[in-house]
Amino acid sequence: MRTLKVDLGERSYPIHIGHGLIAKADLLVEHLPQKRVAIVSNETVAPLYLERLSRPLREAGVSVVPIVLPDGEEYKSWQTLNSLFDSLLEHRCERRTAIVALGGGVVGDIAGFAAAVYQRGVPFVQVPTTLLAQVDSAVGGKTAINHPLGKNMIGAFYQPQVVLADTDTLETLPERELAAGLAEVIKYGLISDPEFFDWLELNMHRLVARESEALAYVIEQSCRNKADVVALDEREDGARALLNFGHTFGHAIEAGTGFGSWLHGEAVAAGMVLAARLSRELGYIGDGDVSRITRLLERAGLPVTPPDLGPERYLDLMGHDKKVENGRVKFILLEKMGKAFVSEAPRGPLIRILEHAGVHA
Amino acid sequence: MRTLKVDLGERSYPIHIGHGLIAKADLLVEHLPQKRVAIVSNETVAPLYLERLSRPLREAGVSVVPIVLPDGEEYKSWQTLNSLFDSLLEHRCERRTAIVALGGGVVGDIAGFAAAVYQRGVPFVQVPTTLLAQVDSAVGGKTAINHPLGKNMIGAFYQPQVVLADTDTLETLPERELAAGLAEVIKYGLISDPEFFDWLELNMHRLVARESEALAYVIEQSCRNKADVVALDEREDGARALLNFGHTFGHAIEAGTGFGSWLHGEAVAAGMVLAARLSRELGYIGDGDVSRITRLLERAGLPVTPPDLGPERYLDLMGHDKKVENGRVKFILLEKMGKAFVSEAPRGPLIRILEHAGVHA
Repeated sequence: MRTLKVDLGERSYPIHIGHGLIAKADLLVEHLPQKRVAIVSNETVAPLYLERLSRPLREAGVSVVPIVLPDGEEYKSWQTLNSLFDSLLEHRCERRTAIVALGGGVVGDIAGFAAAVYQRGVPFVQVPTTLLAQVDSAVGGKTAINHPLGKNMIGAFYQPQVVLADTDTLETLPERELAAGLAEVIKYGLISDPEFFDWLELNMHRLVARESEALAYVIEQSCRNKADVVALDEREDGARALLNFGHTFGHAIEAGTGFGSWLHGEAVAAGMVLAARLSRELGYIGDGDVSRITRLLERAGLPVTPPDLGPERYLDLMGHDKKVENGRVKFILLEKMGKAFVSEAPRGPLIRILEHAGVHA
Repeated sequence: MRTLKVDLGERSYPIHIGHGLIAKADLLVEHLPQKRVAIVSNETVAPLYLERLSRPLREAGVSVVPIVLPDGEEYKSWQTLNSLFDSLLEHRCERRTAIVALGGGVVGDIAGFAAAVYQRGVPFVQVPTTLLAQVDSAVGGKTAINHPLGKNMIGAFYQPQVVLADTDTLETLPERELAAGLAEVIKYGLISDPEFFDWLELNMHRLVARESEALAYVIEQSCRNKADVVALDEREDGARALLNFGHTFGHAIEAGTGFGSWLHGEAVAAGMVLAARLSRELGYIGDGDVSRITRLLERAGLPVTPPDLGPERYLDLMGHDKKVENGRVKFILLEKMGKAFVSEAPRGPLIRILEHAGVHA
């Protein structure tokens, strides 16, 4: 088992990575203020892992309230959240009853937000079961639900007590979702870790083949990269913005194609292609760099041709993105491979790359 | 103008108290990260004070998005909050657009919770217009909405940038609401400030007559008392629980009689009578103390005869209160006049005082 610590002062917490962790109740029990938890999962994950997680907890004397939500990004909604509160209150969950998220990013986001605001905050534990959640959403404390006018518009920064990333859960993960997780992994290489990007170019075939040692390594490296940034900037005023590389475009792609038709990681992959092209257009990186990025994303099984929504639609959708200040859109650009920065972009080059969005590299 | 500072490290903020403050835009503008605000008010308060607050802001170059909610505790709901998010998104309010609460406790609670979770947190300003909000809900960062199964069940701890308590707004306050505010004022004397309780016994007639200097004094003393407690215990793990004196019973009274029929402060007044009787029953205070408390509440125009819901209904309703740990109800009791503490209560004495709830002192 690998363990790393996210250093946030009194909100610090450990991330444990390895196989078989779901059944290791002792890793959770030491973080519970009360021998009672509510486990929030969804209809896909619960049949696979709910009992594997619950039985050892019950054997350790912890009473378990299971709450199973429908599966899908479209349920990351106000309505689902409200039904979750109904369940918590009906089962008389208290201020010291921990909420455990068992599932992917959607379950983590909605259960985490519920933990942040139920009775003004209860203890929270993450047990992410997708690669995306293990390398991204389970680290850093971002929780949210969607609004019809924008993704993740309602939420909170709320840190878990502990994260268990069990690599065994990746064995049952659909191929598209594995690729979606790899998009965020590649992102860490691009924004701050050029050696990791090189490693990914050499080892992508092992990841696609789901070699467990290779997966554990990239989970650890990704969490470490993200934890370093989050420790510097818990509430996204500065350095943390870099984690949104590809996301401003990506959110527009998700919204413009209707939430759910592109996976988040797929939209981020195509968004990173646009961000790379914009960085090239502005003279920071070269054609060869854009090709390397595109090629690695393709090898991970990701889409690299952004949808042709038209420049105006892209701009309109990005106007609703949270990374907007005084009405001007900010972008995360690459200064070079392995180094990102925040900048506004002149309208001309931006329109140019959006006009060619639908062109394959 | 009186100013006191709530000391919460990087979340510290000033409270300004005095007359005519609503029109002093400069007190707000220095705290705005962007020359744009959304002012959240209700149908009763907006006609009286919205323009008085907005005009000087506009003259100072701040653009104002007014959002007017229906008036009443029954609108401190999920549905109203959702309509507030719709308005914020339709007006493209951003992460740096401050939300200003102009109104009583309900407006402050819902606007504050919206500020806490809209885009994972935007700047927040409180302009409380009732005595209750000025002495209680605008200090300390508690925000929330109600759930059909319990009051304030969904919320966040979220601090404002600044609070403006304008005593002029108390001139238009209905008599019952003035009294409701005085209930919390009396509470501060009982839990931690015996000299203040003595002062209130000597000066209650001046408060009921709305003498502005006397009101300003009690607002300042109340905020100072609350700010001291909040500074010690921002998230209600310890000392802050004492502020809930009378509230465990009070919440049961509000819920048991249907939210809205008793004002919060009225329920707290009757709840303090029950808490005082329980303290006497357990031998901490004497009959004379219970009489002093009851008499002062009566002089403030508050109800002192708790509704006769029956012991079982009271216990059931208190089981849903947030001050529950491992299924056992905790109470705030008086050790003596001016000193409160947290304790569980044996079932016998508790049942006894609940059986006599409907008896006038």
